Amino acid sequence: MSRWQPDAQERLKRAAIELFAEQGFAATTVPEITARAGLTTRTFFRHFADKREVLFGGEEIPALAERLMAEAPPSLDPVTLIVEGLKNVADTRFEPRREEIRAQRAIIRSDEGLRERELHKRAVISDAIRTGFVRRGLPRAQAALLAELGTALLSVALDEWLDQEGDRRLSEIIPDTLTTLRATLA
Amino acid sequence: MSRWQPDAQERLKRAAIELFAEQGFAATTVPEITARAGLTTRTFFRHFADKREVLFGGEEIPALAERLMAEAPPSLDPVTLIVEGLKNVADTRFEPRREEIRAQRAIIRSDEGLRERELHKRAVISDAIRTGFVRRGLPRAQAALLAELGTALLSVALDEWLDQEGDRRLSEIIPDTLTTLRATLA
Repeated sequence: MSRWQPDAQERLKRAAIELFAEQGFAATTVPEITARAGLTTRTFFRHFADKREVLFGGEEIPALAERLMAEAPPSLDPVTLIVEGLKNVADTRFEPRREEIRAQRAIIRSDEGLRERELHKRAVISDAIRTGFVRRGLPRAQAALLAELGTALLSVALDEWLDQEGDRRLSEIIPDTLTTLRATLA
Repeated sequence: MSRWQPDAQERLKRAAIELFAEQGFAATTVPEITARAGLTTRTFFRHFADKREVLFGGEEIPALAERLMAEAPPSLDPVTLIVEGLKNVADTRFEPRREEIRAQRAIIRSDEGLRERELHKRAVISDAIRTGFVRRGLPRAQAALLAELGTALLSVALDEWLDQEGDRRLSEIIPDTLTTLRATLA
């Protein structure tokens, strides 16, 4: 086995999710994960701060949100900006990994500490969206509402996407969820 | 000093919030709180599990939400149910305690663990609202959206209420926040 595994991170992640699903998150150790992946614990800690980070890796979504919002034309209406941004994230980050995300969700739901970490992650994304809208010149309360809207749409649409019997894309479910919200508020 | 203080809980809370504000949450101990309140630590632990619970005491809001939703007429439209429920909570629980709630918010914002506890509390309220709407016969995605709407409205309106220069009631700001959301989505 070559020392430099270009796919080490992916293999560690897959091994970890398998083990968490088989024997529980709390009961799984880093050496067990690295043994299953055929890699060293040293390699593990090059990629992840701890076993929890395997499930939450990448703080890149807030940074992505910030960039998309800074680059969007100033005239673009805020709801379109949110929906297009979420569709972009859905197609690039979520759609190719549905089974893995479903397994991750089950593990997160099984552990109180993981659920708190997920809520924290969601709050960080919400803050990034709110700051982005304030920078685009929106009043504070409206920016806060739009940030809540963005994270709420993603969260509700994500559950629909993972729980569906069919095979609809997340990027189709997101605008449908907005339509449901509009109809509910009408 | 009488052994049975009918206002012991209130005095402990006031003493704790003063000390958290003066010297920080982490640096404040339970004996310091009870010394300032002129009560024993034993009394403290009769009212609160730990010093964090002084800031989050009372899991009564999810229970209140559950009761209001079960008792509301089946024909009541869901958005009206949410807004009337929030106005009820605003007038009975929040309006009489604005300064205290403002001080609590500042302390919570100063400590990562307290912020996580607050996010958890919000998630519990959201779950109660979602379950209430599912019991009222709404489809799952709509119930989840309404739960997100309820907690989002309360959170954004609460910040407006605490940060305002003027003296508007929270129960007036809540429907105005909904109007802003409707206009944003239109």
